Amino acid sequence: MKPCIVLQSDFGLSTGLPASMTAVIVKTDPQIRIYDLCHEVREYDIRQAGSILASTVSYWPDGTIFVSVVDPGVGTPRRSCAAMLKNGSVVITPDNGTLSYLYDQITEVREIDESVNRLPGSGEHHTFHGRDVYAYTAARLASGIIDYPGVGPVYDVSEIVRFAMPQAYIQDGCAYGEVTSAHDHFGNAGISIPNEMIKEIGIQVGDMARVKILKEDQVLYDQTMLFHKSFGWVKPGEPILNECSNDYVEISINQDSFCERELPELLQAYDLSVYKVVIGPVNKE
Amino acid sequence: MKPCIVLQSDFGLSTGLPASMTAVIVKTDPQIRIYDLCHEVREYDIRQAGSILASTVSYWPDGTIFVSVVDPGVGTPRRSCAAMLKNGSVVITPDNGTLSYLYDQITEVREIDESVNRLPGSGEHHTFHGRDVYAYTAARLASGIIDYPGVGPVYDVSEIVRFAMPQAYIQDGCAYGEVTSAHDHFGNAGISIPNEMIKEIGIQVGDMARVKILKEDQVLYDQTMLFHKSFGWVKPGEPILNECSNDYVEISINQDSFCERELPELLQAYDLSVYKVVIGPVNKE
Amino acid sequence: MKPCIVLQSDFGLSTGLPASMTAVIVKTDPQIRIYDLCHEVREYDIRQAGSILASTVSYWPDGTIFVSVVDPGVGTPRRSCAAMLKNGSVVITPDNGTLSYLYDQITEVREIDESVNRLPGSGEHHTFHGRDVYAYTAARLASGIIDYPGVGPVYDVSEIVRFAMPQAYIQDGCAYGEVTSAHDHFGNAGISIPNEMIKEIGIQVGDMARVKILKEDQVLYDQTMLFHKSFGWVKPGEPILNECSNDYVEISINQDSFCERELPELLQAYDLSVYKVVIGPVNKE
Repeated sequence: MKPCIVLQSDFGLSTGLPASMTAVIVKTDPQIRIYDLCHEVREYDIRQAGSILASTVSYWPDGTIFVSVVDPGVGTPRRSCAAMLKNGSVVITPDNGTLSYLYDQITEVREIDESVNRLPGSGEHHTFHGRDVYAYTAARLASGIIDYPGVGPVYDVSEIVRFAMPQAYIQDGCAYGEVTSAHDHFGNAGISIPNEMIKEIGIQVGDMARVKILKEDQVLYDQTMLFHKSFGWVKPGEPILNECSNDYVEISINQDSFCERELPELLQAYDLSVYKVVIGPVNKE
Repeated sequence: MKPCIVLQSDFGLSTGLPASMTAVIVKTDPQIRIYDLCHEVREYDIRQAGSILASTVSYWPDGTIFVSVVDPGVGTPRRSCAAMLKNGSVVITPDNGTLSYLYDQITEVREIDESVNRLPGSGEHHTFHGRDVYAYTAARLASGIIDYPGVGPVYDVSEIVRFAMPQAYIQDGCAYGEVTSAHDHFGNAGISIPNEMIKEIGIQVGDMARVKILKEDQVLYDQTMLFHKSFGWVKPGEPILNECSNDYVEISINQDSFCERELPELLQAYDLSVYKVVIGPVNKE
Repeated sequence: MKPCIVLQSDFGLSTGLPASMTAVIVKTDPQIRIYDLCHEVREYDIRQAGSILASTVSYWPDGTIFVSVVDPGVGTPRRSCAAMLKNGSVVITPDNGTLSYLYDQITEVREIDESVNRLPGSGEHHTFHGRDVYAYTAARLASGIIDYPGVGPVYDVSEIVRFAMPQAYIQDGCAYGEVTSAHDHFGNAGISIPNEMIKEIGIQVGDMARVKILKEDQVLYDQTMLFHKSFGWVKPGEPILNECSNDYVEISINQDSFCERELPELLQAYDLSVYKVVIGPVNKE
């Protein structure tokens, strides 16, 4: 059975753009199974695209071919690539930071050779590489028309464009991290601190915790709340620090949006790493 | 041919969550056909999830496996179940009211045994049963890895959590019912009164009708309008009582949103049954 | 291999309506591959539906069956049809203008005979032809249960309901056209002037151009901007006239929405042809 292709973009679902990528694949090989990861990535939000990709790759079969197109540099000189992961999956994407959070899993990267891997007749189009280059290359790879070296020339993995990885550490009995997501549909703020690190500082499921969010040393939010396994352990409308199923904690309000209600500026930011988070016991200054 | 799986949730399409459910199924068995019912159910709106499910189940093949995840209680003690319907289809969902409007079709219900039916390695995750339990169980069931009893132990169908069913009746020549939906994208208000009941009170297609909406005996809306087969029989901008293709009437405005323009509070409500509807002839007090 | 079916509508993704069309196809023939083109066409926007269809049809395999349902006249006397295109693809749609931009490719058109091609038991439903007539007819056609003549009687192609085609021409060294789209998710204004026509008036990639938008001879927008291959050649926040991958130019703002920021009334309009565009050299009055 041929590998499946999984598509992601910031094209939105109110246009024909995601379907145009699907069309190119179907026309290349109608037997390939095509799935959508997410086409409502926030416009130009390369970090969100990279983050969704990194948190979901392992749930798909080994050998899956991913196409991720958040591409503000389309038509300008930026590299298009296909990165091979340890599990045999391949990510086809502009090399613009999307691969940041998958970097440790990349074994090889190749630049797409557009003289071969470009939809015939599309050479005059410079705004839709998702369709004309990425989907087309993915289709040919999944179909077996080209093999992985057929994508184009290898370049050094260390040259891949990367954002800094979110940090987390323990100091003086508190866990320090940063906001990693603010667009999860339920309005939760994802935090770079692992579930386990909360327990390491002595806060167990069912305990209270003090949660601070700071920007450039200014405290934007400071609240004591329950730490638990899911958001449903407090009453609707109350905040909670809960374990998230990506293995990191998040700040939620049960059946309401934490970001909208408490820190709407998170929803505007593209680089959330400037929002620092400190979690500690309630009696701690 | 293996049964297909149909997925529904309130996860939204701007995240990777719906795709994560798909991924788990594809990884379990790449031959299973997977379709999306709706992933933009309003957040936490169990009634809407149940209603969409009940109104669409019969259009899918007998034996289809549905997964419906609107799950504000995720991670707290609430039952996860798989309900067998008369036509051999199975609905996998938290037992939280989602099954209300399908109750009459349920022949057996089983609690999901998470010691067997849980994605390996996911035991520490308590916020994403949609992926870790429901999609995984659906995939194993569709694939034939487990049979229906393999889901877990039977419990009594009468224990299923249920909302009251919407009522409709005739009294003194008028039809009485309640609002059943306000989120159909076109802004129509769905009503619990069957198309046929309007004719029973003497109002035929093409006649005028008087339509009242009340909340706790306070009249919120009182208007005379045409009763017809579809919304297009009045001019754009005019209200109409029309037959809907779910066999119940709805109040529409041709090419505009009735709910937004006339009763925006319907869009905020979770329990629409408090909005009573009275439909009668125009000369009736 | 049976032809695939591609579905489009203005039903939105927050309901079960698009999935109901899918269900009818799956129930008719589970082997048919079904893809979504777009279900978030603006409500009642027949022009947008026609435009998305026309700009994507060629990317799908020859022989594909398209279903497009933007249907404000549903339930009233308007024709339902299946149009055969030169490449063997078929478009099933209400005959209400949706076929305008594909008109030159149509070789034959047939009215759907609902006495044959209607979901059994749906005869009392008059608001959901997308499910009961169009998806059902598409499924039977793709499955081979009916052939193309089995759709219903032929009528004259010249009777097809059509909107005027967008115009473009050169006069006195300037290119004249009109706005063709304002809902592309990124907020660009699509223009009816081909990329090539800009070069014909002496403006090359990298040159500056003067761009005017007028409505009834009133100038709404008048700006000098770079002409280039994609929007990324100016700084974020700056306007640009760029070639679009549909072979026509568009007015963009790099990483912002041109329509929202400069001409929000474009987002309200249904008939964009009243917005005239003049593009010329910068030294031109």
